[in-house]
Amino acid sequence: MQVATHLQHIHPSYIREILAAATAEGIISLAGGLPATDRFPLSLMAESIAELPRHAELFQYGETAGYRPLLDHLENLYQVASSHRMMVCSGSQQGLDLIARTFLNPGDGVAMEAPSYPGALQVFGMARAAIHPVQQHRDGPDLDALESLFASGQVKLFYAVPDFHNPTGVCWTLEVRQKVASLCDRYGVALIEDAPYRELRFAGKELPLVSTFCPERALVLRSFSKIATPGIRLGMLSGPRDWLPALIRVKQASDLHSSIPMQALILDLITHPGFPGHIRQLCDLYSERYQALATALSEYLGEGFDAEPVQGGMFLWLKLPVLDSAAVARAALTKRVAVVPSTAFYPKGVSAEPALRLNFSHEAPDTLREAVRRLARVLI
Amino acid sequence: MQVATHLQHIHPSYIREILAAATAEGIISLAGGLPATDRFPLSLMAESIAELPRHAELFQYGETAGYRPLLDHLENLYQVASSHRMMVCSGSQQGLDLIARTFLNPGDGVAMEAPSYPGALQVFGMARAAIHPVQQHRDGPDLDALESLFASGQVKLFYAVPDFHNPTGVCWTLEVRQKVASLCDRYGVALIEDAPYRELRFAGKELPLVSTFCPERALVLRSFSKIATPGIRLGMLSGPRDWLPALIRVKQASDLHSSIPMQALILDLITHPGFPGHIRQLCDLYSERYQALATALSEYLGEGFDAEPVQGGMFLWLKLPVLDSAAVARAALTKRVAVVPSTAFYPKGVSAEPALRLNFSHEAPDTLREAVRRLARVLI
Repeated sequence: MQVATHLQHIHPSYIREILAAATAEGIISLAGGLPATDRFPLSLMAESIAELPRHAELFQYGETAGYRPLLDHLENLYQVASSHRMMVCSGSQQGLDLIARTFLNPGDGVAMEAPSYPGALQVFGMARAAIHPVQQHRDGPDLDALESLFASGQVKLFYAVPDFHNPTGVCWTLEVRQKVASLCDRYGVALIEDAPYRELRFAGKELPLVSTFCPERALVLRSFSKIATPGIRLGMLSGPRDWLPALIRVKQASDLHSSIPMQALILDLITHPGFPGHIRQLCDLYSERYQALATALSEYLGEGFDAEPVQGGMFLWLKLPVLDSAAVARAALTKRVAVVPSTAFYPKGVSAEPALRLNFSHEAPDTLREAVRRLARVLI
Repeated sequence: MQVATHLQHIHPSYIREILAAATAEGIISLAGGLPATDRFPLSLMAESIAELPRHAELFQYGETAGYRPLLDHLENLYQVASSHRMMVCSGSQQGLDLIARTFLNPGDGVAMEAPSYPGALQVFGMARAAIHPVQQHRDGPDLDALESLFASGQVKLFYAVPDFHNPTGVCWTLEVRQKVASLCDRYGVALIEDAPYRELRFAGKELPLVSTFCPERALVLRSFSKIATPGIRLGMLSGPRDWLPALIRVKQASDLHSSIPMQALILDLITHPGFPGHIRQLCDLYSERYQALATALSEYLGEGFDAEPVQGGMFLWLKLPVLDSAAVARAALTKRVAVVPSTAFYPKGVSAEPALRLNFSHEAPDTLREAVRRLARVLI
C-alpha cells in the first residue's frame, strides 16, 4: 500500500539503526543515548512493583491527561504556575509529537538548534514543517541568527534542549536563556523546552528553565527516561492552561492514555526517600565516566580534536579535523566501536559540522578508554 | 496558540466526556466500555510482576516493533503467515492511529460501518480522511452499498469491527466475511480488521477473521485491554511484511516503543497455564451479565424496543422508537443512569439511527437490572 506523502519527509533514525549493529558481539557502543542499565533504581521500585496487583483500579482505563495523584504531585514538585497545566505522555518523544500534531500545519516554520535531536527532526518532518536550523555555539544558539529568523515572521515554534543539549552537551548560559525568552516574547514564537537531561548535572550551578522567563508562550517536556528508566516510557508536558485541552484531545486519539501502573510506580519512586540519593549517585557515576572519556580523548587523540567540556548530561561532541564524519563512523565500526556522526543531527540538505557524538553514560571507565583507543586507530 | 487546521475535524469523545459525569456518586454507568475491574487476571500476573525488578534489561530502551519474545510468541499463537509481520502498539487505538498516519493523505477515502467506534472517527478525522459510512445490518455491513462505494474508486481503507461490533454487538456471518474480503480484493481496498472483542464470545461458533480471506490487503488490530487489562495500554498490529516498516517508522517518531515491562508481563500472562481458564470465566461472567441486561430490558420495556441478541463482546444496541437519542441519554442521567446515545457513533452530519449503546461487562446483574429500571422511567 502506498505510504502517505508526509512520510517521504522522515527517515529511519540513524541512531536506532546503528543500535542494531552496535549490539553485535565485541562492539563497544558509544552510539546510543542509553542510561546506565545497572543503575536503574529498581531496588527503590521493588516494593511498589510487588504491590501493584493489589490495586486493580490501576489496571482499568484511566484519564487521558494522566494519573491524577501523579499530576498533582508533579505540578507541586515543579511549581507549575496556576496558569499552567501538566499532562503525562508516553515518553517525552510522544509529548513532542503531540505538540507538532496539535499546533503545526504543513509549511509552518520551526526553528531548531543545529545540530539537534534526530527524534525532533523526525517529528517535525512528519508534520511537514519548514525547519529552520540555527547554529549552536558553546553557550547556546546564535542569537543574531535567531533574532533575524524570528523577525522574518517565518517561525511558529522554537524547539530547544537548553540543558546538556543532545548532541553537543551545551548548557545555555543564564544570559542566553533570558535573551532567547525575550526574543520568543517579542516575536510571538512559542518555545518548546525539552529538558530530559536537566537533572543530570555533575558540575556548575543549576540554571532556571528558559521557560521561566517566557511562561506564557512555553511548553516544557520532561522525561523519566534518564532519572528513572526509559523502558517504562513516561514523560511529561506542561504549558499554558489554554493550550492543554487540544493536546489532550490529540493524545486521546493517539493512545487514550499512558500506562497507569507505570504512572503509579513513578509516583512511588519519585516520592521515595531514597530517590534524591539515587540522582546524586547517578550524577557522580556520569561525572566519573565523563572524566574517563575526556581524559582518554586527550591522551589518545591529542591536538586537533576539540571536545568542549560538559557539565552534565550523557554526551560529548568531538569535533573532527576531517570532513566526512559518516565515513569516520563507518571506519570506527570496523575497529569495533560504534559512534554517531554529526550528519545524523542535521536536517537533510544542511551541511553538518564534522563531529562525532560520544555517549558516556552507558559504559564503564575502562570500556570508554578502550573505545577511545580503538577510535584513535581510525582518527590518527 | 492557534491549533492546526486538522484538529477542527476531531471532537472530544462523547464517551470519555460522559465518563466523568458517569462516575458521580449514585450514577450507574452503562456508558463506558470498561471490562470488569474485579476480574482482571492480577493473581495470574502477581508472580511475574514481583519478578520484574530482577530484569533490569526490561527497563532499558527497547525495539520499536516490540519486545522480541512477545512478538515471537504472538506470531506463533496467531499463526501469522510468513508473508506477514506483527508489531506491538500502545493499545490498539495507537495501532489505528499509526495506520492512518502511515497510509492516509488528506482527502483519502475511508469506509466505515455506520454506526462505528468513535475513537476511529477521531483518528480518521485527524487524518482529514473522507469518511464514507456504510449501513450496518444484523449480519454485517450492507454489501450492495459497500460494493457501490468500492466500485466508485473513492475508498483506500475499510475500517471494520466484525466480531461483536462496537457499538451494535453485531458479529458478521461467514458469508459476509467472505464477501467483504472478496470485495476488498476485487477493488483493491485495504481492510483494517479491528478485533478487540473477538475472544469475548459466549455463544455461537468462532468464525475466521475476515482477513483470513484477503490476507494480502488486510491489517489486523488486536488488543490486550479486554482479555487482560486496559490500563497497561498494549495492543498488536499485524499485516503484510512490506507494510510494516513504514508503520514502525511512524511509531518510532510517535513514542519510540511501548512499555517493555508491560510487554514482558503480558507474555508471562498469556503463556500462564491459568490464562485459558481466565478467558472462559470472563466469557461466562459476561454471558450472565448480558442475560441479566437482556431479560431486564424485555421485562421493563416490553414492545417497541428492539435489542438484537449478541453472542459476545460488551455491548447491546437498544433501538428506540423515539428520534432524539441524545435527549434520552441526557434524561437518563437525571435518573442516575449513564448510557451513550447513537449520535456518538456516527460521523458529523450523518443521520443516526435512534438507539442507545448499553455496556454489560462492567456491572453486576442486580445493578444492570436497576439501571434498566431507571432507564424505563425515561423511556416509557
